[in-house]
Order: sequence, then C-alpha cells, then structure tokens
Amino acid sequence: MAKKIARTAASVKKKTVAARRKPARRGEKAAREKTAQKLVGLADRVVAASRKKKDPFVDIPTRALSNVRFDARRQIIEMGDNTQRRSFFNLGQAKKFMQTMLVAGGCKELADQVKTTSIRDLFYHCKHTIGKSRENTFDEQTESDAVIEDLEVAVSSLREELGLFADPKGSMVGPMTIVDGGDVIDLSRMGTGGWAVPSIVEDHVIQFRTCKAKFVLLIEKAAVWRRFSEDRFWEQHKCMIIHGGGQPPRGVRRLVYRMHKELKLPLYVLVDNDPWGYYIYSVLKQGSINLAFESQRMAVPAARFVGMSSYDAEAFGVPPAVTIKLTDQDIRRAKEILAYPWFAKRPWQREIKHMLAQGVKLELEALSAKDFSFITETYLPTKITGKKWLD
Amino acid sequence: MAKKIARTAASVKKKTVAARRKPARRGEKAAREKTAQKLVGLADRVVAASRKKKDPFVDIPTRALSNVRFDARRQIIEMGDNTQRRSFFNLGQAKKFMQTMLVAGGCKELADQVKTTSIRDLFYHCKHTIGKSRENTFDEQTESDAVIEDLEVAVSSLREELGLFADPKGSMVGPMTIVDGGDVIDLSRMGTGGWAVPSIVEDHVIQFRTCKAKFVLLIEKAAVWRRFSEDRFWEQHKCMIIHGGGQPPRGVRRLVYRMHKELKLPLYVLVDNDPWGYYIYSVLKQGSINLAFESQRMAVPAARFVGMSSYDAEAFGVPPAVTIKLTDQDIRRAKEILAYPWFAKRPWQREIKHMLAQGVKLELEALSAKDFSFITETYLPTKITGKKWLD
Repeated sequence: MAKKIARTAASVKKKTVAARRKPARRGEKAAREKTAQKLVGLADRVVAASRKKKDPFVDIPTRALSNVRFDARRQIIEMGDNTQRRSFFNLGQAKKFMQTMLVAGGCKELADQVKTTSIRDLFYHCKHTIGKSRENTFDEQTESDAVIEDLEVAVSSLREELGLFADPKGSMVGPMTIVDGGDVIDLSRMGTGGWAVPSIVEDHVIQFRTCKAKFVLLIEKAAVWRRFSEDRFWEQHKCMIIHGGGQPPRGVRRLVYRMHKELKLPLYVLVDNDPWGYYIYSVLKQGSINLAFESQRMAVPAARFVGMSSYDAEAFGVPPAVTIKLTDQDIRRAKEILAYPWFAKRPWQREIKHMLAQGVKLELEALSAKDFSFITETYLPTKITGKKWLD
Repeated sequence: MAKKIARTAASVKKKTVAARRKPARRGEKAAREKTAQKLVGLADRVVAASRKKKDPFVDIPTRALSNVRFDARRQIIEMGDNTQRRSFFNLGQAKKFMQTMLVAGGCKELADQVKTTSIRDLFYHCKHTIGKSRENTFDEQTESDAVIEDLEVAVSSLREELGLFADPKGSMVGPMTIVDGGDVIDLSRMGTGGWAVPSIVEDHVIQFRTCKAKFVLLIEKAAVWRRFSEDRFWEQHKCMIIHGGGQPPRGVRRLVYRMHKELKLPLYVLVDNDPWGYYIYSVLKQGSINLAFESQRMAVPAARFVGMSSYDAEAFGVPPAVTIKLTDQDIRRAKEILAYPWFAKRPWQREIKHMLAQGVKLELEALSAKDFSFITETYLPTKITGKKWLD
C-alpha cells in the first residue's frame, strides 16, 4: 500500500503545486523580505565570526523580571538593555545556539515562501534526529517556543512578523471597512458571528479602509459581546465591539493598538469585577511582565476601564444573590495587584480596596438579573455618558 | 453617587430603548413564536393540573446511559423512550420542579423579545433569593444547565431554538454565500480570519444562498485550518473548510449537518491520529452518549475519516522523530473505543489495533517535518483522490 500511496502522492503533488496560492500581494512580500533580511543579518554575523576562526555567538536581550521596568512617563512596562551572550563553543550553550539557528532558518523559509504557520508547526518543522545519534534537535515544544521569544527580541521583530501565529480567538463588528488578505470586508455586515480576528493583523495583511466608529469597546467575554452585537450597540453608539474570549490573544491586542494609534479611537475596556478583570485591563493598558518586549507595539496607556467596578452593585441596584464571594486566591491576587506601580493611582487603590472590603466579585452576566439588555441599554451608556470610568 | 447614577441611568434608558435593535426578521420571529408555544403548552398542563387540584408534574425523558442505544440501521446514537416524572408535591422533586418552571419562563421571555443569551446569563437571570428566606432559586450554574438539558428534551427543542448559546468557536471559508442575521456574506472573501461560526445557526438565522462547494472538510485544529486557508485549498478543490478549535462546538456540528443535509455535500474529517481524534470523528458521525437527544439533528452518519491514520507515518514517509509515544491514558481510551459498536467495522478495528501495536500517535502538524504545505499539496489530495478514507 505504501508504494501505491507514494505514486499517487507524486502525481497529485505535480498537479496541486502549480495551482496553489493566491499570489502574495506586493506589500506582504516586501514586509516578509524585510524580516528575512534581519534573519540573514543574524546568520551573516555567525558566518563572519566562523571565517575569522572566532567563537560564533548571538546576543539575546535578557527576558527576566530583573530586566523589566515600568516607564512612568510613557506608562508602559518596558524591557531593559541587559543582554545575554549565547556562544557556540560553550558546552552549556551549544544546543541552545543550534536551536536558535534552526528556528531562524525555519522563519527564513517561511518568509521566502511568504507563508505563515503555528508555533507548534514550526516545532515539528525543526525537529529531527541528529545524524546517526539518538539526539533530537528539539524534544518538547516549550524549547522551540522559548527560542522564538529569544529570536523576536534578538532581531527586533514581533513573532507575527516572523510569520508565526497562535490559535486565533475573538470577533469584531462595527462601522468599519477593512482589507484582509486582499479581500474588502464590511464589518457592519457580518451577521451574528462577526469577523474572526486572525492571529496576524500586521498592516501588510490588514488595512483599515473606511471608519465611522468613534471608539473601540473591548469586552472580556464572547457571550457578553454577543449581547452587544445582537442589540446592535455598535450601530447606535458608533463603535467597534471586539472580544478576545477572556485574556485577549496577541492578534486582538495588536489590532486594538493599531485602531487606537492609526485611527485615533479611544479604547474602553469592559471586564468582570474581579482581580482577573483588573489584570486583563492592565495588560491592555501597560503590557505584561512576561512579554515586556512587546509593550511598545501592543500597550494602549490611554485605555479606560468602564467596569465592572466594585461600586456598581450598589449604584445599579444589583441584587446580592448574584454576587460571588471572593476566594482566597482572589484575595491574594487582589493584594498583589494593589502593589503594582501601575495601579498606584488613588482611584484604583480605592477601587481594589473596596472590592476587598465588600468581599465579593461580580460578573458581567450578573446584570441580567435585572434585564437581559440592561448592560447594553442602561449600564454601559450610563458609564460612558457620565464619564464614570477609571484610567 | 448611587442616586446620581440612578438618574443618569433612567434618562439613558429612555433614549436607548427606542433605537436599540434591528427589527427581527419575519422568519426569526415565527420560529421563536413556535418555541414559545411549546413552552406555553408545558405551563398549560401544569395550570390545568392545579385547577383540577391534582399534583402538577412534568415528564422528562431519561438522560442516562440506560436510555441510550446505537441504532445500527440509521447509524446514530439515539435516546430511548423512558421518562422520569417530576412532581411539585414531592419533597425531593419540588425544587427541581420550581427550577424547571423558572428556566422555561426565562426562555419564554427570550422568545417574546426575540433575543438570545448565554446559559450563564440565563442562570443569573433566574437566580434570586426566595421571599424573605435565605434560600436561592439556584446556587450554581450546573443546576440551571442540567435543567436546560431537561427542558430541551421535554419540549423537543434544541437549546439553540430556546435562544441559548454556548461560547462560539470555529471559522469557515469557501465558495458559498450565506445570509446571516439578514446580512449577505460571501464566504470566499473573508480574508485570513474567516467567518466566525456563531453558536446559533438554525435556519431562521443562517440561510444558504449560493454554493459552489462540492464537499465539506472539517479540520480539528485552528492552526491547521489556517494552513488550508492560506494555501487556498478551498479554491482549488471547491470545498468549504471549517474548524471547531478541537472538539467542535454545537454550532459547528449543526452547521456541518445542515450543509450535508440541505446541500447534499459529503463530509470529510481531518483529525490527529490519536484516540481523541477518533472520538471527534465519531461524535460528528454518530453523536455522543451524553447528548443522544441531539444526534438526529447533528450527526452525519455518512462522514468520512480522511486521517490521520496510524498507517500514514509509513505510507507518507514521516520521520519517526515526530511521532509521540502513546500515554497510558491514550492506550486505555483506545481500548474503550475499540469496544464501541460504532467502531466495530473491520477497517476500524484494524486501524485502532495498528495504532496500539505501533505504540505511537501522530499530530497533523507532524507533516510539516516534510514541508509546510505537504498537508495541503500532497497528503490530503492523495487521500481524497485515492479514496483512502475510512467510514
């Protein structure tokens, strides 16, 4: 059977390769070539060192808490200038050096072919047994994932620019027309499902064409987003509504950043009233410690928190039966957040301490105890009209 | 502050309610009225019993393994005829009876307002403290979720017809035009993200308008789907490509069923070669034990398994370095699956036993060890052209 399959495979391949892809658009090709150049630069330095009979190395900015700082002026979490050298002739670093070269090589192939792929796929692409040994280049995906993060900072390209994506999550609708991979898409005519926000939203893939929206509303949960979509909140209030299915994935963060930066749209964030909700907001606003490198291209320091606040249960007459007692973990997390410099402003200290004093948290869905559309018809318009946000 | 917010809220509410929703289309309204009628019928029987001074009750078909059977002729897992009576004057059943009435009432409200909501939202909507007691109608969402499943079978309506949805997952593209909530959407021009498949895809919401696709390809993973989308597999092979982010959610299953049934499109299923992949395929094909009630409106017995098969590593020359050793749990699960009547056919017994004998599993991404587009250019065309599927 194996032989027969091999024969069919060969004939099939011939037929399909010719017809396969939509030709890459010029902008996309140019962007990928730029990334390829950076990778070639990295390789050139290694080759040059080898020719001079010197130990080849790569310098990687240090990705650790010790090399992260909160820039109070720019209001984002940033990476410092410390770097770590990875040399080929160091027994403890040789494997990591080899892996860095393999991943860089895989990304170069992707760039040359103007393709994108998942980080899992790249792991498999780079995984093989070395020569006649029993040693694999990679054993676990965690190894190649770490190397990808190194490479991002080493060549100063987001992984999306390297052609790598994570599983997409999130939808968007609103009065805007975009171009996505060459297709013109009217985001006000996306039915009930919305446009699935892809993982890679760089401007060589997604371009904004026309926009009648006056702000962006990021909603924590898909189910609540659907309420806003069904009630056509975006039409009445002229806004883009977007969700990221919990903690927004990189594609959603990057898109929100681009809408804020390029279209000058204010960003409002609507999350549960619990430490997790505060955290989602803070990652959108200042970036995260783990991925400090990306803050400057993803964080939106002007983001506004429109709730839910620990004062809302009383203010909007939400019945106590729908509040939830804080767990020990919630309390621990809230205290950690209280100590972050980016939550040092007085209104935030007041907000978090009040949640702790009340001892309860509140989900967005709890507003349905009043009425299914209370959140779209009363709650959020009241918050925005009355400028009842935190920032 | 609370008073001020209440005032703002009242004035905001007046302005927003008038302008809020796109008027429901006639088909949608009619469908929801039909569901409302069924719920009213349920309530009428309770009222009639009360008037006759009899114990009000609801009969709920039994949802348990004992009441499930595999219909070998129709090739689906079906629910039997056993029912359980839930009476109001039975101390052990009174609370469940009350909860059933509350959930039915909530669904009736949704139907009257032609709205949909999440099962979590409905939980909050129905949750309140009873009178001056400290007793809540519901404490945990698991309680209302179970009652929803009861209600589905009791009034013979899928939860989507009751207006309830789960978190959406999954995207689709391909040569087809649909109408979604009144918007005409060309699924061949959806850019890189695709159309986000909503949770509710009943024909009063989604209608098929034109279709040039010749089959449907369901892909287990979002990341692999993206490879097919980027390589424009759907254009060359004239098919719809859809994924459900792992185990497909109800919306994806129901949509696949409708495309198969109404448009007569064959369904091919592309999953990992592991017990989980077999299971995903079997749920699409025969339905599941847990939700046997829905099989007849979701299962596609004609579904074809195009891989991956445990014979593929050898047949396609996949290097051993990218196979993964079966875990104890994998082996246990594979043996369970081997015993299911719906896997009794000889080719399936051979397939599963071969996987066990090899002792390894294989992910779709492993094919990237050969080439990023091996899966779209060689693997799948070979399988389909050569009719190398299992069914």
